[in-house]
Amino acid sequence: MEIHPIAHIYTPFKEKFGIPRQGQAARLSKGKIIFEPTYRRKEAVRGLEKFDYIWLIWEFSQIKKETVFKPVVRPPRLGGNEKIGVFASRSPFRPNRLGLSAVRLDQIEWEGDQSPVLWVSGIDMVDGTPLYDIKPYDGEADIFLEAKSGFVDTHVFEEVQVTIPEEMRDGLDGEYLEALKEILDKDPRPAYQRKQERIYGLTYGEYNVRFKASPHQIIVLSVEALNEQKDLSERTKK
Amino acid sequence: MEIHPIAHIYTPFKEKFGIPRQGQAARLSKGKIIFEPTYRRKEAVRGLEKFDYIWLIWEFSQIKKETVFKPVVRPPRLGGNEKIGVFASRSPFRPNRLGLSAVRLDQIEWEGDQSPVLWVSGIDMVDGTPLYDIKPYDGEADIFLEAKSGFVDTHVFEEVQVTIPEEMRDGLDGEYLEALKEILDKDPRPAYQRKQERIYGLTYGEYNVRFKASPHQIIVLSVEALNEQKDLSERTKK
Repeated sequence: MEIHPIAHIYTPFKEKFGIPRQGQAARLSKGKIIFEPTYRRKEAVRGLEKFDYIWLIWEFSQIKKETVFKPVVRPPRLGGNEKIGVFASRSPFRPNRLGLSAVRLDQIEWEGDQSPVLWVSGIDMVDGTPLYDIKPYDGEADIFLEAKSGFVDTHVFEEVQVTIPEEMRDGLDGEYLEALKEILDKDPRPAYQRKQERIYGLTYGEYNVRFKASPHQIIVLSVEALNEQKDLSERTKK
Repeated sequence: MEIHPIAHIYTPFKEKFGIPRQGQAARLSKGKIIFEPTYRRKEAVRGLEKFDYIWLIWEFSQIKKETVFKPVVRPPRLGGNEKIGVFASRSPFRPNRLGLSAVRLDQIEWEGDQSPVLWVSGIDMVDGTPLYDIKPYDGEADIFLEAKSGFVDTHVFEEVQVTIPEEMRDGLDGEYLEALKEILDKDPRPAYQRKQERIYGLTYGEYNVRFKASPHQIIVLSVEALNEQKDLSERTKK
């Protein structure tokens, strides 16, 4: 079946690296949902403001379409070694490349050319991701308190201690620092590639962040504004 | 984007009429998921047996593709009168006709030609519905206890009293009767079309059920086995 984007979501995650493995791991990260012109109608979200959370069905748009079906994946939660069925995981490497996330609906912007714009937080998708559906989170139908959740129950993500030295905080606002810390303390490094001597870089929001890591600690080395030119081209893209 | 069915689900709901508005309204109704040959691999569901619930992303395959976008719907929960945004509802009449349901995973059948077969309950889709993805329900990421849920919180479905006279129970097993009762006590009649003098019919499993209804009561008039011929043609269809 052919499906068409109804909207796109714009987030601080400019690239795959550094994206949390679930939206709940990044409650402080905010995004905005802008509808495609056909679906940009206030009536289409009437009543949605009374829901705290919404489901997004979206596309893992940065994942290459596989020509051959790979039945197993190695979830980061299992250290990247153990293989598990693709349908027993939320891995992006799946036949139809569909993602599913519940995000917090913080606010609906009703005025302006692009309205209604949905402001959300607790996101885990890259900037510009196409959305195929938005549905209200239903606290009656969607909550199974007693649910056993396999390896999710038995394997926790270990948090690491994050240090952002004083001299790097200049000019950054407190909300940005808190959100960045939340991204880093889940240890964004791929499980299969963790080298202590290596310097990692990720882009979060309008900044490029470099850091190094020991097993239980991440130290930020620099936080630098993306240059004006790159900034501009990204704005044009939208 | 083009998406392809990875599996189909077979359920007792042979037609749209009578399908519960959420899977939780039909916890006793069971279905089985049979993978398409390409995805019919035991490794693809390895580890899934340790999850109690799974998400299904599926197609409202009996809904005609709309050529014009309809931004509002009239949810049955609101009595079929009040209009609400399509993205504030789980209505089947939506741009990409994608359904989302969490169902209970009762058992995985590991042996046999069609294995692995997933047996599930608490279903709300018509027999033969195509599935586009199966993901584990994650008790950490998917539960928002404090979530306000708009009209779902404020409008409950009123249950009606269901009577299935003794003489109609002959030859029906207890599980079937319990499941049928559960379907009927949610009152499957469309909200906009409730006539007391009318006799309604629905097909559930291998039986045709006729009933009549007063505002708070449903009385079953007959439960008749579907005829052999129809039965056979449906089996061939699969």
